[in-house]
Amino acid sequence: MAKENDDSLLAEFLGVAVEAARIAGEDLSSHFNLCQVIRKAFYHTKRVELKGQVDLVTETDKACEELVFNHLKKHYPDHKFIGEETCATSGTAELTDEPTWIIDPIDGTTNFVHGFPFVCVSIGLTIRMVPTVGVVYNPIIDELFTGVHGQGAFLNGAPIKASSQSELLSALLVTEDGVKRDKPTINGITNKINDLLFKVRSIRMCGSLALDLCGIACGRLDLCYLIGFGGPWDVAAGAVIIREAGGLIFDPSGGEFDIMSCKVAASNAHLKDALIDALR
Amino acid sequence: MAKENDDSLLAEFLGVAVEAARIAGEDLSSHFNLCQVIRKAFYHTKRVELKGQVDLVTETDKACEELVFNHLKKHYPDHKFIGEETCATSGTAELTDEPTWIIDPIDGTTNFVHGFPFVCVSIGLTIRMVPTVGVVYNPIIDELFTGVHGQGAFLNGAPIKASSQSELLSALLVTEDGVKRDKPTINGITNKINDLLFKVRSIRMCGSLALDLCGIACGRLDLCYLIGFGGPWDVAAGAVIIREAGGLIFDPSGGEFDIMSCKVAASNAHLKDALIDALR
Repeated sequence: MAKENDDSLLAEFLGVAVEAARIAGEDLSSHFNLCQVIRKAFYHTKRVELKGQVDLVTETDKACEELVFNHLKKHYPDHKFIGEETCATSGTAELTDEPTWIIDPIDGTTNFVHGFPFVCVSIGLTIRMVPTVGVVYNPIIDELFTGVHGQGAFLNGAPIKASSQSELLSALLVTEDGVKRDKPTINGITNKINDLLFKVRSIRMCGSLALDLCGIACGRLDLCYLIGFGGPWDVAAGAVIIREAGGLIFDPSGGEFDIMSCKVAASNAHLKDALIDALR
Repeated sequence: MAKENDDSLLAEFLGVAVEAARIAGEDLSSHFNLCQVIRKAFYHTKRVELKGQVDLVTETDKACEELVFNHLKKHYPDHKFIGEETCATSGTAELTDEPTWIIDPIDGTTNFVHGFPFVCVSIGLTIRMVPTVGVVYNPIIDELFTGVHGQGAFLNGAPIKASSQSELLSALLVTEDGVKRDKPTINGITNKINDLLFKVRSIRMCGSLALDLCGIACGRLDLCYLIGFGGPWDVAAGAVIIREAGGLIFDPSGGEFDIMSCKVAASNAHLKDALIDALR
């Protein structure tokens, strides 16, 4: 692992991560085709368990995590792995300096369960705790976002960059309503939205944080923040893609982004300070 | 016009409306190809005027309205026409018993300007003030929603139906933050969201009311409400599509849906009363 930051090695990591995200295209005869698993389940009835009040887990979620892990482990048996589903059963994940794949098999699970097409597979790789490779794939509308530290960010192979919007009042902001439904949390969410509606053009809530971050990366959205979400799997891939697209990812307080903190803010290159001010 | 509710005539109206929405596919050589106009402008820089603080109008918006109107007028010179852009310059529209085409050339204009792929052309036909034919086309992700009174609702030709969700607490609700930014309006919006977050599973705000209504029609979303939006062009097509998909569209107070009121609520067949209660 001495050369794990070597450019060609990183590109190889990316290639394997993309394969994991679209095993589909490679083996149509495979029964456990990730895309088809998602697509098929997406358009049919699914068995759903309730995890808390609004956090949903489907069979597909579990099946996809296994597919992605198996593919990555086959290539990198010595790497570490953190997955949403695995952590849900085995407790909190610990991030180390080791190369660590951080997976959300289906980000936007509520959307997935309802058939709302804003869902994705999110695969990130940290090396010495720095997000270094990111793949976010929405198989329903076939959008593949990728990023590698130092090598740029791409949507379906075409370079992407964050927006050039420099006026907060003209900015499109995305956030989410999260999964907690206690009074202080909900009041916190809606007070913030109330405050921000006077400061930005409009707010979107689409149900997938990983895709929200990719929206910043490709300039469709200008600003994002969320305080309180599932875990590092929601942001590990998006963090690389945003940075490589010339965007910024940071703590909502203005401090450094901490992948384990379950708090995130992101912007294009111009609006970081304005967003931090607005969130105060 | 004696037979204007004749089934085959309605099917013909639908065909012409679909043509208007995707002139594109029919004449690749045409310079004024609606789809291509949208797609091309979508991925390039656009000249944008500000209309109020958050209401945006692009050249494409105006060009698309002209394309749609021209196509419809060619076939139905005696029909009436109401369009968002035309009304913006000529004042408020008046709806009569005459067959009336009600057009939003780009619903989700803010999304369009930012490149967020939730945009559509919305074309509705009222006959004796009843929404009778509806076409909503998202050219970015190529989704065509259609509905004709008594003849069902379809997504890209396949029949659609509203969800079967009967528990409010498990329902996915969609709303929008509108375009008004005065304090009473914003407080009204966020107080309602605060209240609803205790009652439903999750809330989406995606920036296109016409597509929100189609989301109810195809079962991706369970509930929708919005008080204060642009005009009848946002809901004329969606109203037909929802009803033909077995969903319900009504006034947020529980009264009858009034296409001219700029207030709307919609649900699947099971959650109307629960939504009205929740909105009280």
